[in-house]
Amino acid sequence: MKFNLIILLFLLFIVSCKPDGSSTQEHKAQHLQAIPTKEVVMEGLKRPWSMAFLSDRIALVAEKDGNLLQIDLVSKTKIEITGFPSDLADSLLIDLSKYPKGTNPQSGHGSKKKYNAGLFEIILDPDFENNRWIYVSYVSERDEKFATKVIRGKLIDNRLTEVKTILEVLPYADGLFHFGGGMIFGNDGMLYVTAGERLYGDSLQPAMPIAQDYQDARGKIYRIHSDGSIPEDNPVISDNAVEGIYALGIRASQGLTTDPRTGKIWFSEHGTIQGDELNLLQAGKNYGWPIISTGGYRGGYKPPELDRNFTVPKWSWYKTIAPTGLTFYTGSEFPQWRNNLIIPGLSRGNFWRLTIEDEEILSVEELFVNDRHRTRKAVQSPDGELYILTDENNGKIIRIVNAAK
Amino acid sequence: MKFNLIILLFLLFIVSCKPDGSSTQEHKAQHLQAIPTKEVVMEGLKRPWSMAFLSDRIALVAEKDGNLLQIDLVSKTKIEITGFPSDLADSLLIDLSKYPKGTNPQSGHGSKKKYNAGLFEIILDPDFENNRWIYVSYVSERDEKFATKVIRGKLIDNRLTEVKTILEVLPYADGLFHFGGGMIFGNDGMLYVTAGERLYGDSLQPAMPIAQDYQDARGKIYRIHSDGSIPEDNPVISDNAVEGIYALGIRASQGLTTDPRTGKIWFSEHGTIQGDELNLLQAGKNYGWPIISTGGYRGGYKPPELDRNFTVPKWSWYKTIAPTGLTFYTGSEFPQWRNNLIIPGLSRGNFWRLTIEDEEILSVEELFVNDRHRTRKAVQSPDGELYILTDENNGKIIRIVNAAK
Repeated sequence: MKFNLIILLFLLFIVSCKPDGSSTQEHKAQHLQAIPTKEVVMEGLKRPWSMAFLSDRIALVAEKDGNLLQIDLVSKTKIEITGFPSDLADSLLIDLSKYPKGTNPQSGHGSKKKYNAGLFEIILDPDFENNRWIYVSYVSERDEKFATKVIRGKLIDNRLTEVKTILEVLPYADGLFHFGGGMIFGNDGMLYVTAGERLYGDSLQPAMPIAQDYQDARGKIYRIHSDGSIPEDNPVISDNAVEGIYALGIRASQGLTTDPRTGKIWFSEHGTIQGDELNLLQAGKNYGWPIISTGGYRGGYKPPELDRNFTVPKWSWYKTIAPTGLTFYTGSEFPQWRNNLIIPGLSRGNFWRLTIEDEEILSVEELFVNDRHRTRKAVQSPDGELYILTDENNGKIIRIVNAAK
Repeated sequence: MKFNLIILLFLLFIVSCKPDGSSTQEHKAQHLQAIPTKEVVMEGLKRPWSMAFLSDRIALVAEKDGNLLQIDLVSKTKIEITGFPSDLADSLLIDLSKYPKGTNPQSGHGSKKKYNAGLFEIILDPDFENNRWIYVSYVSERDEKFATKVIRGKLIDNRLTEVKTILEVLPYADGLFHFGGGMIFGNDGMLYVTAGERLYGDSLQPAMPIAQDYQDARGKIYRIHSDGSIPEDNPVISDNAVEGIYALGIRASQGLTTDPRTGKIWFSEHGTIQGDELNLLQAGKNYGWPIISTGGYRGGYKPPELDRNFTVPKWSWYKTIAPTGLTFYTGSEFPQWRNNLIIPGLSRGNFWRLTIEDEEILSVEELFVNDRHRTRKAVQSPDGELYILTDENNGKIIRIVNAAK
């Protein structure tokens, strides 16, 4: 009996210690590296914009050129979620004759042109398991003009019910670009939403630039209750400001994420010519667009002087990244990346990893420089796997795995 | 007795497995991260340029504004190495009236100005332990003109003996800048040396630009035997080319390093306005300066057309890095960085880490973005510790340690 116990202990010892004991130092070093590799989980999506996990296996995916889908990542089956309001635009009809040269990338290409339009962000209520609320931002159409809108609805049998508009970014306006639409629930239970200024050409700015105009809802970040009502502890922007504004001076921000260690919210922002930014979201701050920018302006635009306090970005890029849906990484596949911020980009630099300590950025890594995709969103599944969505006509869901493991 | 054995085995089991067994997953993840931190080992150096280790503790350090020193990194004692030839410049006297605006950063600051000058690279012979040869590149002076020169000498009792010039980059010329002076022994036992084109203002280029002129020794990379003789298997550049040229089209390259996995040599290169590069060194290749560049030119310079095959960089930066003495990292402090290329920079981006697979760059990380130093050189000690030298009047030797360990 005692002898058996000795053998048992020996076996236990050998088994428990094997991973370290049997490997050479070279192998150990190799094992500790992060060698991120892309695994295509699914393709054939219509420019997927956002993804919200119902479980490790089942996710809702919002397509910019398509629909809200419930996708099974294992069986690869798709179910369309119905019940959207009729104002959900499925295309943008743009009168290009209204746009002087440099104010629209399609300027001079004829008169009217049709573009796809649709959904942006899809997120779940923090208490989704009990209340089934989901939140979707999208392009709303009214008389051939467009605005960013946020609805919530109950997801029952693959259909939205009890749908309610909780934010509508007025005015309805022309133009293809810069709807914003990023959303996140903060640790305070409030819903934060980015609203773009809806311009492409800087020379179309009014005398008081949109993002600086307290009475224009565009170019702002909002903080609202999940039913759309305005929290009493929101910052005071000005007497006449649009309700719900939490921060201003926003051009085209699309991504928001919360640092799991501090609860602080970071957001990405696009510049016109370079000037892409990473910002820390703080109550009542003015992020300066278009008065200040780390980048340039189109069409020789010169912003007016405006005597306000502006908040500078925590990081900006020297080249155009077009940073979008970002996330802090807490999975186990890349322990080296624990709590790092992952920022995908639409433009040539497409996958960035930042080490952040409280409010200070320590390092900035560009990954996959030899394998670039137009990437819309980085998102983590409940079990900590890292996914990216590619902004392509044949859009993909890609899982990032560690080839060194 | 048997009972004691059981207890012994138990203890063995507990002790052996503790690092893994006792730590939470959070702690494990933390431990796997790279949190590089700077530890100042020594300061008070005169713009140290290069460092060659005689042991883990003792190193030779070449100062740009000073001397060759033997330094004990533990006791912090310095011994000056003597025996240098009398042509070693200790200052550069520059007649600024010769330089039109934009051709020298000091243009218009009076007539003659004195700058410090001195040593660049210090490396040991691959068989140093037996033959005591060391190799030093430096600014050689003749009649108030200057050239890059390489000598070898035997290090005996803190003195260079049997000193021999093994490379002299003609012609002797005016000007402060771009001596090059980077050196490395390849795995083939040959000595590779970078020679800058010695210009600051691009508008001072002759009709046939220096780095493209086969008969001008400047703006080239050399491959020579350790006694200065020319290897028979060097590439043929042209009938009339300067002897020893291995590659051309070089502007101001200062750093060379060998990938320990492939034996391939990589070198850093400075552009004029941006255009900083990382290149793979290959026999007979023309790296294009100044005909092609990923950056711009000063003073409206337009390079002539020249019908040659140019080799493009493997990486270039969008901002000015001023990349210098680079090294592949193989130490144990940062197992995550195993075989990664470390590139320090003089300009604002000062510490970069690249993941390279054979000839392909996979990722590019900028480190210490919150703690910038003008960094001249990254070098690894025999026991794998990573050191950097700062290019400052109060120059420092800094050890990079992992705060996560």
